[in-house]
Amino acid sequence: MELRPFHIPTSHFFKKSILWNDEEAESKVKDILGHLLGTKSFFFVPSCFAALELAAYSLDFTLNDEVILPSFTHVSVANAFQRAGAKIILVDCLPETMNIDPESVLKAISKKTKAIVYMHYAGNSTGFTAVQEIAKSMDIALIEDAAQSIGSSQEKKHLGTLGDFGCFSFDYQKNVECGQGGLLVCNNEKYLERLQRLYLNGTNQIEFNQGKVDYFDWQDFNGGNYRFSSHLFQILLPQLFHIDTINGIKLKNALDNLNLIGSFNFNSAHFFKINEESNHQTNWILFEDHNEEKTFIHSLKEKNIPFLKHYYPLHLSKMGKNLPFHETTGTAKKSKNIIRLPTYIR
Amino acid sequence: MELRPFHIPTSHFFKKSILWNDEEAESKVKDILGHLLGTKSFFFVPSCFAALELAAYSLDFTLNDEVILPSFTHVSVANAFQRAGAKIILVDCLPETMNIDPESVLKAISKKTKAIVYMHYAGNSTGFTAVQEIAKSMDIALIEDAAQSIGSSQEKKHLGTLGDFGCFSFDYQKNVECGQGGLLVCNNEKYLERLQRLYLNGTNQIEFNQGKVDYFDWQDFNGGNYRFSSHLFQILLPQLFHIDTINGIKLKNALDNLNLIGSFNFNSAHFFKINEESNHQTNWILFEDHNEEKTFIHSLKEKNIPFLKHYYPLHLSKMGKNLPFHETTGTAKKSKNIIRLPTYIR
Repeated sequence: MELRPFHIPTSHFFKKSILWNDEEAESKVKDILGHLLGTKSFFFVPSCFAALELAAYSLDFTLNDEVILPSFTHVSVANAFQRAGAKIILVDCLPETMNIDPESVLKAISKKTKAIVYMHYAGNSTGFTAVQEIAKSMDIALIEDAAQSIGSSQEKKHLGTLGDFGCFSFDYQKNVECGQGGLLVCNNEKYLERLQRLYLNGTNQIEFNQGKVDYFDWQDFNGGNYRFSSHLFQILLPQLFHIDTINGIKLKNALDNLNLIGSFNFNSAHFFKINEESNHQTNWILFEDHNEEKTFIHSLKEKNIPFLKHYYPLHLSKMGKNLPFHETTGTAKKSKNIIRLPTYIR
Repeated sequence: MELRPFHIPTSHFFKKSILWNDEEAESKVKDILGHLLGTKSFFFVPSCFAALELAAYSLDFTLNDEVILPSFTHVSVANAFQRAGAKIILVDCLPETMNIDPESVLKAISKKTKAIVYMHYAGNSTGFTAVQEIAKSMDIALIEDAAQSIGSSQEKKHLGTLGDFGCFSFDYQKNVECGQGGLLVCNNEKYLERLQRLYLNGTNQIEFNQGKVDYFDWQDFNGGNYRFSSHLFQILLPQLFHIDTINGIKLKNALDNLNLIGSFNFNSAHFFKINEESNHQTNWILFEDHNEEKTFIHSLKEKNIPFLKHYYPLHLSKMGKNLPFHETTGTAKKSKNIIRLPTYIR
C-alpha cells in the first residue's frame, strides 16, 4: 500500500479557475485581502521569512537591542532578526497550545528589549492579549508571526493585524498558498515610510513613481528587492475567493484527526483543540509518555497515515544553545517530539 | 495617440503553453538550464538580489573585508554586499559598453579586497577576461552579475558560469521572466556546502532530506528562506524552451533600434552594439552633448516611442557619496543620462 502524501498544496484544486490577467488578479487579491484583514497597509513578499526580515530591518536594531522569540518556532524567525542586528532572547511556551508563555516573556524582558515576536501557532492566539499588554506597557514593538493564520481571528479581528507588524506565509503547506510567498502587514504608521523604502531596494522609488523626484537613488543601506511575482496573484486569487470553503474543509479534517486521537484515550498527550476562530492549518499532538507516543506512531503507520515532526527548538540547536533562554513550563524542550497530522484537502 | 508601453513581459506570449504539472515543469526547466549553462550547480531564488545576497553571505565577509562594485549598477547589488558585512569600494566603467573598467579595478584593489562584482551590462562581457585575470592572480572571489544575460555568452561559454558565482534575474523586464525570480550559479565547489545551508534557512535540512540526521536544526546565523515558488516553473518553461526564438526577436528589435539611432548621425553618442553572443536585452544610448540628447528625446516623443533612464550611479547617491570611488574614464558620473529603448516582443 502506497503511503499517502503528507501534504497536497491547496492551489492544486483551484488551478483551473485561472480567468484573469495578472493586473486584474492582483487588484482582486488585494481587494479580498483588504476586506479580510481590515487594512490596506500590506506588502506582498517572497516568503514569511522576507516579511519577518523586512519588519526586523524596519525596527532599526542597534547594538545591544534585544528581541524576544519563542524557542519553539521556525529557524527563519531567528535568522531574520539575527541578520537585522538584534540580540536574540529565547522563551518557553504553553503546553496546551504551544503558544509563547507570557510568564516566560516577563522573565526575559529588560530595558534592552526592543521587540517581541508572538507566533500564532496553528492559527491560535492563547496568551496573546497578555503579551500585547506587556508590550504596550513597556513601549516594546510587537510582531505577530501569523505564518499559519490566514483566515484566523481573535474576537473577530484577524490575526496579524493586532500588533505593530503581522507576517503571513503562503508557502505550499499553508491553507492559501502560492508555492513560496508571504505578506507583511504594517499596523503602525511610524514604521511605514522606512518600510516602503526598504521594500524597494532602500530607494525612494515610491516618490519617483509619484513624479515627486527625477531619479530614485540609494537612500538606505538595509533595503532589498522584496517584490513578489505578479504571476502568483493568479494562483492566490481563487483560493482567497474560496477561503471560507478551504478553512471549512480544514475544520472537517481537524475533527477527523481529533476523532483519531480520541479513539486512543491517551493520558499523557497534549494536542490541538477545535477553535472556531482558527483556520486549523496545523493539527499536532505531543506526548509526555514515550510509550503512548510509540503506540500512536505504530497505529499511524498501520493506517498508512503520514506524519511529520515540527520545529527543533532553537535553544537546543547548534546556533541557539548559547543564547539566553528563559524556561518556565519546560514545554519548549519537549517540542521536538511534536507529531503533525495531514490536513490537506482530499 | 496612446503611448506604447516601454515593456511587455515575454511570458505573455507563452502563457498558453502551460501543459505540465509543477514537478514536470521544474524538472524540464532544470534540464534546459543545465544544458544551456553547462552546469547543474544552481539555485532558484526569489530575485537576482537574493542571488547576490546569498553569494555575498557565502563569501563570509568579516570586518574590513572589501568588495569592488561598479558605481553604475543596480542599488540591490550594493545592498546585498552591505548586508553581508562587506565594505563597498566603487569603480568606474567603460564608455563603449558601460562595463566595469579594469583600470579602475586595479586602482581600487588592496589586500583587503575579498571580492569583485563584474556586471555583464546588456549581456556584454567587455573587459571581463582582464578582470578575471586580476581576480585569479590575487585570489579574489569573482561574482558575475548576469542579471541581464540569459542566453548570452563569451566564446560560447555562457555568462555567469565563468567566475565563482553567477547571478541571474528573471524579473518581468528580462528576456526570460517569471515576474520576480532569480538564479544563483555556484562555479566554485569550496563555497557549495555553506551555500546549501544558507539557502535552507541556515539549517542542515539537506542532510535531513537525505536521511543522514533525525532532525534538522539551526546551524548558521546567516541563512534565510531563499526558496522559489514551484508554480513559476510553469511560467519559465515555455520561454526557456524557445529562448533562441526570443533572443532572435530581441536581435531584430536591436537592429531596428540601431537603425533609429543611425538615422540621426549623432557625434556625441555612445550606444550599444550588435554582438552575436549577447541577448540584446538592453538597448541604450548615452550623449555627451546635451543638445543631441534633446533632439533625440524630442524625436522619440514625436514617434510615440517610450524610453527609460537606467541606474543612478551609486557614488552620487545619498548612501554611496561617502564611499570610496575610483574614477578613471569619467563615465559612471554621466551614466544617469542613459536612455533605454524598448526591446519587448511585439
